[in-house]
Amino acid sequence: MRSTPEHLPEHLRATIGLRVDLIDTPALVVDLDAMERNIQRMAEFAHKHQVRWRPHAKMHKSAEIALQLEKAGARGHCVQKVSEAEALAAGGVADLYISNEVLGGAKLLRAARLAAQLAARGGRLGIAVDSEEGITRLSEAMRVAGSDAGIDVFVEIDVGQGRCGVPPGPAALALAQAVAAQPRLHFAGLQAYHGSAQHLRSAAERRAAIAHAVQAAADTRALIEAAGLPVPLVTGSGTGTLVHEAASGVYGELQAGSFLFMDADYAANERESAQPAFEHALFVKTQVISARPTHVVCDAGHKSHAVDSGMPLVWGLPPERALRYANGGDEHGVLHATGPKARLPALGRMLWLVPGHCDPTVNLHDYLIGVRGGLAHGVVERVIRVDARGAVT
Amino acid sequence: MRSTPEHLPEHLRATIGLRVDLIDTPALVVDLDAMERNIQRMAEFAHKHQVRWRPHAKMHKSAEIALQLEKAGARGHCVQKVSEAEALAAGGVADLYISNEVLGGAKLLRAARLAAQLAARGGRLGIAVDSEEGITRLSEAMRVAGSDAGIDVFVEIDVGQGRCGVPPGPAALALAQAVAAQPRLHFAGLQAYHGSAQHLRSAAERRAAIAHAVQAAADTRALIEAAGLPVPLVTGSGTGTLVHEAASGVYGELQAGSFLFMDADYAANERESAQPAFEHALFVKTQVISARPTHVVCDAGHKSHAVDSGMPLVWGLPPERALRYANGGDEHGVLHATGPKARLPALGRMLWLVPGHCDPTVNLHDYLIGVRGGLAHGVVERVIRVDARGAVT
Repeated sequence: MRSTPEHLPEHLRATIGLRVDLIDTPALVVDLDAMERNIQRMAEFAHKHQVRWRPHAKMHKSAEIALQLEKAGARGHCVQKVSEAEALAAGGVADLYISNEVLGGAKLLRAARLAAQLAARGGRLGIAVDSEEGITRLSEAMRVAGSDAGIDVFVEIDVGQGRCGVPPGPAALALAQAVAAQPRLHFAGLQAYHGSAQHLRSAAERRAAIAHAVQAAADTRALIEAAGLPVPLVTGSGTGTLVHEAASGVYGELQAGSFLFMDADYAANERESAQPAFEHALFVKTQVISARPTHVVCDAGHKSHAVDSGMPLVWGLPPERALRYANGGDEHGVLHATGPKARLPALGRMLWLVPGHCDPTVNLHDYLIGVRGGLAHGVVERVIRVDARGAVT
Repeated sequence: MRSTPEHLPEHLRATIGLRVDLIDTPALVVDLDAMERNIQRMAEFAHKHQVRWRPHAKMHKSAEIALQLEKAGARGHCVQKVSEAEALAAGGVADLYISNEVLGGAKLLRAARLAAQLAARGGRLGIAVDSEEGITRLSEAMRVAGSDAGIDVFVEIDVGQGRCGVPPGPAALALAQAVAAQPRLHFAGLQAYHGSAQHLRSAAERRAAIAHAVQAAADTRALIEAAGLPVPLVTGSGTGTLVHEAASGVYGELQAGSFLFMDADYAANERESAQPAFEHALFVKTQVISARPTHVVCDAGHKSHAVDSGMPLVWGLPPERALRYANGGDEHGVLHATGPKARLPALGRMLWLVPGHCDPTVNLHDYLIGVRGGLAHGVVERVIRVDARGAVT
């Protein structure tokens, strides 16, 4: 759903058309030109490798952006939580996959009802499982919801992250058979996401980790199919490793989401030559509010950007004038001059930060300020609502 | 403003009266009995030391809680941002102090208008400055807003944190004189908060840091008063060091906020004997959604609690059965058994986490679920709106 000005709070409506230098700080700003170049690169990449892409909406959390991605060729969207699926469905997204385990009865009932609603709109809901208990509870929720539309169920295997999922092999076969035995559950394939591989810094380490994941997924698929149960899809991958899953011949769908905005953490990876040249498109605009001979302080702290994956980068400065951002608490960043010719910026000066991690950064804000024409001279074109902000259940 | 059921979204209205074991996960839960005991302890402490307490509302971000604190004896509230002040003022709070520098013209104009509104209601607005530029801009905003009510201005001195503030001594005197020279600005005293001292683990280190801060504040006050300008108040302090500022005879006001909820980071401090026995009152309820022989995974990650000051504690277990929480990403926590007799909890089991840092944890949620009668057998008594969630400008 496009956040047309009528739906926006007054102070945000007034922002549209504003020159970028007049945006109040701190603000989470999307460079729309960079974002759209990233979308184009991803669409071309998926087309070239003949894989589907189902971007992870846990990154941007916005129905408006999800629909823009679908127009460019994305086939549906991933989310992590039932409440995220509900928020995007309310914004017009109809093909959603909860790529995560859900155990709570109230949440499973909401998922079952959402599956029926989406089916009635010609869409579809999927969900991941990694336990017999999860399958039994989901099946019961689908029975209580009373819909015949069914739900796509992916069995999650742990391909190296050591978080959720059963081990590849017989445990996955047992779950696939348990899913197939339930009338309202459709066994849809394997969820095989290697999360920790995304952030291995060297290309060789990422390649080795995904080679292992691909083998585990292929072997598990073969085992299940040998037992007479087709495995329609292996799904997974992320922005850090998508070149490998795309070329594997095993993964049929890529779940990468961060390519859209790119954060400082992903930018720190050694780039693969086959990787599309994704650009930073998400920025925090901030202002220097205090100046001392040794450092200056800006008005964006970890309430404006997430620090779980490291500090933001100060953007747009040549290396010899580099500034380093240190955490100054919820509302402050402390900036030091680190480049050999660096000078501390003056009181009142505006700066741009590239957040360390885009997903939880977006989650801190209710709106994204979309700028057209670049960070130096652009204007605000649209204000995008973060529909699923705070959606944790 | 009390979040009466009529103002709540339907699914939260339905929560009131619910048994604690039925609260959906993840959820941010306040143990109201523990919170009220903390309020009582703080009120008694402030009374005993004959200091005012102006709790920092950047912690709880709720007008309802602010008004509850005022009933118990708090004299006004601190905030860090103009938008936080606006949100609390809209909820009925009339005495507010922005204990931080503001440089942006639009924000200063909002502050000036808020100062007039609060004065018209018999209240008051204060703000901190640490530059001539800040004073000039604030004065201009007050002129444009056209109010004669004025605004209380505190000169911030850096008493050891190395963030905002001018050095103690002549620089502070110059700013105090610059404030006093402006017709709509009332020089109200010194802002002297030592943030980093709050988290020094040993009592001796904290004592030494605050002894230095007290001396710096006292010397600066003497210098300003020797120049003929009265210094009505020295304000600062936090939950980690309040015993020292309260006993100093220099600080007239305590800004501590975290005492209300207490987080894992503050609980890791060596306790001073004079420190009131504040209890944990803020918890994340979470459920085990995936179980393996080596670990289990719960449904609360760093989208449910802030990790800037470390991981949450798993609450309510004796040391021999301790579980350790490791970060599993935005939506997952990975739990390992660390106590000698610890057993991994079963799939579906509910657990309670004590967040690492309360302020940014509250900022992730729109509502706090208030439970009466304890975490084991209590019921939901009230749902408290986080009025200033996401307020960064």
